[in-house]
Amino acid sequence: MAKSDKKIIKNFEEEARNVISAFEANKNPKITLPKRGLSNVYFDKKENMIKLGNKKQTRTFFNVSQAKKFMQMFLLAAEVKKLIKDDVTTSIRDLFYRTKHTIGDTKENTFDDQSESDPIIEDIEVAFDALREELHLFASSRGSLVGNITIEDAGDTINCRKLGSGGWAIPSICEDDIIKFKKSEAKFVLFIEKDAVWRRFNEDKFWKKHNCIILHGQGVPPRGVRRLLRRFMDELKLPIYVLVDNDPWGLYIYSVIKQGSINLAYESVRMAVPKAKFIGLSSFDKEKYKLPNAVTIKLSDADKKRIKEILKYPWFQKPKWQKELTHMLKEDVKLELEALSSKKIQFISETYVPDKIKKKDWLE
Amino acid sequence: MAKSDKKIIKNFEEEARNVISAFEANKNPKITLPKRGLSNVYFDKKENMIKLGNKKQTRTFFNVSQAKKFMQMFLLAAEVKKLIKDDVTTSIRDLFYRTKHTIGDTKENTFDDQSESDPIIEDIEVAFDALREELHLFASSRGSLVGNITIEDAGDTINCRKLGSGGWAIPSICEDDIIKFKKSEAKFVLFIEKDAVWRRFNEDKFWKKHNCIILHGQGVPPRGVRRLLRRFMDELKLPIYVLVDNDPWGLYIYSVIKQGSINLAYESVRMAVPKAKFIGLSSFDKEKYKLPNAVTIKLSDADKKRIKEILKYPWFQKPKWQKELTHMLKEDVKLELEALSSKKIQFISETYVPDKIKKKDWLE
Repeated sequence: MAKSDKKIIKNFEEEARNVISAFEANKNPKITLPKRGLSNVYFDKKENMIKLGNKKQTRTFFNVSQAKKFMQMFLLAAEVKKLIKDDVTTSIRDLFYRTKHTIGDTKENTFDDQSESDPIIEDIEVAFDALREELHLFASSRGSLVGNITIEDAGDTINCRKLGSGGWAIPSICEDDIIKFKKSEAKFVLFIEKDAVWRRFNEDKFWKKHNCIILHGQGVPPRGVRRLLRRFMDELKLPIYVLVDNDPWGLYIYSVIKQGSINLAYESVRMAVPKAKFIGLSSFDKEKYKLPNAVTIKLSDADKKRIKEILKYPWFQKPKWQKELTHMLKEDVKLELEALSSKKIQFISETYVPDKIKKKDWLE
Repeated sequence: MAKSDKKIIKNFEEEARNVISAFEANKNPKITLPKRGLSNVYFDKKENMIKLGNKKQTRTFFNVSQAKKFMQMFLLAAEVKKLIKDDVTTSIRDLFYRTKHTIGDTKENTFDDQSESDPIIEDIEVAFDALREELHLFASSRGSLVGNITIEDAGDTINCRKLGSGGWAIPSICEDDIIKFKKSEAKFVLFIEKDAVWRRFNEDKFWKKHNCIILHGQGVPPRGVRRLLRRFMDELKLPIYVLVDNDPWGLYIYSVIKQGSINLAYESVRMAVPKAKFIGLSSFDKEKYKLPNAVTIKLSDADKKRIKEILKYPWFQKPKWQKELTHMLKEDVKLELEALSSKKIQFISETYVPDKIKKKDWLE
């Protein structure tokens, strides 16, 4: 049993004992947990990440509006405890089905929809200070990886230098009891927004020439990819470069990787990658690399609105970022990674990224 | 250079010579290619797949409504020829950016949007009888694979029995010049609709216990996964079992794998898997496996409409299929794969699938 397994079971049992004691003493059982809403989220400037504040909420059993949630929390926690004891993992959808049933002779279901069980899982995460993965739960997996590293995955040793065109499919649970880093020569990690562009870098053996690890998460990276990036930063002390489209969506992806997300602020402590560097595309790249007008895309009204919002985010207040974003608005265009192919198909892997890294031409 | 590379270049050059000769003889250059629309699609009962018919269309250069498409076709083909000669692959989005430019001093672009270049790529595929992958083009990649097989991918030997929890990320190009099948003990292939359920089968080492290969494509399988399934059928002579939700979407996925899709009917000849077997979920499984009502989902009006359409498809006319679909309508519920977890998390991998295979309880 992993260390986190023991800790979680211990905490579950302690909380359960408290509730039982309250019942026995004819008191109203209660659980106290951190508030998860926007009202309790802040940007920690020093650590450079979005965090959950100190506000708490209390959920009591003898309360018409809270009794169901109270029951659901214990129902899910009991099932999670079984998962941990049996040493199996499952999906949050599966957990919903496992725990969904009609109560006694009533017509009332424990849950009607997964949209009811998912937030309770998040409640359990914050209440017990455990990542979803530590609760043996997984979300969807996406993305793949190749490069100069050997990884142990569930007991198998995987040489990521020998994985052909496909690569290692990054699993959704990348905690260190399952995924272990073995021998690695890599000097940096390159995260690429799109799988198609990742394929370009792999086909050109960029990771071999530049001694690194390359990975993608098919758009907004799923939890497994984010956790892996964080662990590369923490455990291997590698610089993490993020390569995304020059549009609000690309900026969002970079931002989720670096600062964490507002919705899941309580995870930042273990999922955010505060040292991640934005390597491009930059709104200055059009001039810098003399890209033709035909490969630019005019900003939509929604894009402009989004950029103006991003300009106000506390984590984009550095002068360099303000300059970058203001320039994007002024140019009135966005650029996709594929726009670089107008010069040469391998321009992005042979020239653009090596040039950016060499010149330290990135934003943080 | 692969055999298909040489064939394509030869055919490109031949077609180009014809066009030049026509110009020189002051004639109107033309290209003849199969029609791709619904009017030229039929179901081949004998081969059990959706195919393209014999209707042709002609595209001429001196024709106001066809000149641009004519130009686009040659522009894209010229770029594809370069890809083949340089032995590199690229994405269809990249190809769009490579060939998008403003024409001379005009304000006219070769393409304005990728929705213009994609259909022309499909035209080139049918005109030259070449799969997109043979044109060195790839679409998005999704899905992963583990099991009792060794695969050579771009020169690297990958032992799919030793790939941990993640597996081999299935690339988008799975043609036999890149992906080669080496040693395999597997007796069958199990395709699973959802990545989360695939993880269940991998965690339980289903492929080891039952000597098989398991793979998923994250929903509707992308081209790489479909091509791989087809090659497993053709080259390794393995039975292919398809495991999907019991809903119209699951039936669609099964149908695309088995018969091919209407939109891309010309690909069926090399992408469809006519021997694929539908192993579940079946609308009879609720009774057969005594699943509680709470885990069923009522059919929506859209579901019912879709099932009634499916009932009329020529490839669902076998009495067993009609019975299956009519029963689904009568029961008025759908079932997700995760519904089986209400019995036990490992019910699907330990009992359901082994039971179905043992009893040959499938539909074809």
